[in-house]
Amino acid sequence: MPDTEILSPMQMALAEARAAADRGEVPVGAVVVRAGRVIASAGNRTRELNDPTAHAEMLAVRAACERVGDERLTGCDLHVTLEPCPMCAGAISFARIRRLYFGAADPKGGAVENGVRLYASPTCHHAPEVYGGMAEGEAAALLRNFFRERRGV
Amino acid sequence: MPDTEILSPMQMALAEARAAADRGEVPVGAVVVRAGRVIASAGNRTRELNDPTAHAEMLAVRAACERVGDERLTGCDLHVTLEPCPMCAGAISFARIRRLYFGAADPKGGAVENGVRLYASPTCHHAPEVYGGMAEGEAAALLRNFFRERRGV
Repeated sequence: MPDTEILSPMQMALAEARAAADRGEVPVGAVVVRAGRVIASAGNRTRELNDPTAHAEMLAVRAACERVGDERLTGCDLHVTLEPCPMCAGAISFARIRRLYFGAADPKGGAVENGVRLYASPTCHHAPEVYGGMAEGEAAALLRNFFRERRGV
Repeated sequence: MPDTEILSPMQMALAEARAAADRGEVPVGAVVVRAGRVIASAGNRTRELNDPTAHAEMLAVRAACERVGDERLTGCDLHVTLEPCPMCAGAISFARIRRLYFGAADPKGGAVENGVRLYASPTCHHAPEVYGGMAEGEAAALLRNFFRERRGV
């Protein structure tokens, strides 16, 4: 019997994004995986925490570092529903994340395939392997619906 | 009689950088000023906290946001001893910092006048006014001495 309850890391990140939307936060979610296990997950909490740095990726990276007791997450992978911004892309590099999987591209705010394309810069000292467009439709729809509803208020 | 005990914000940032070096951290310090008063100051704590995001600027911005109860620091200025990296430059932008004063330029890791030059990117939605080279000699010497001593160990 197939175990249909096991979510992929990106499905877990999407669940974090939906939970963020329910809290009135921009719906972005992220999880950190090490050796096939999720070791941290987070959704965006910038409003709740009054903290402009509290993007999903930042919170997930910080929680994972706390869990492993190291400021480097060598061998760990990050799954996030939206293309990271410059701040998060920088943190992902500092944390030595091995692979970055992201959902929707972000032409206006992204810094991986768009904007400053941080990992292509000669001053970026660690670049993860990057896999974009994971569950892209769902990740983008979450954001679109969130902003549509807010405009309607 | 001149009050010789009042430190400038950059002198306070340098004191935070020296304290960071004493803790074995890369010596960078930052302070946030609002209406002529320092509302937050921090030194780098990445090792102590096992947190790759715990750069001086990030900690100072987060502390200032907590103090004012807002995720935006409109009208506030940041003084930091080293040119911010992409992560910190991004956070400074999200926090809507008005003016950024930095000490030493960082050709290898900076993202303001070097590297990706984040604030010149069309995808950067808020750029502070930037003043580089403040107390540059002292800020650079602190870093140079720190790394020289570590190499000597």
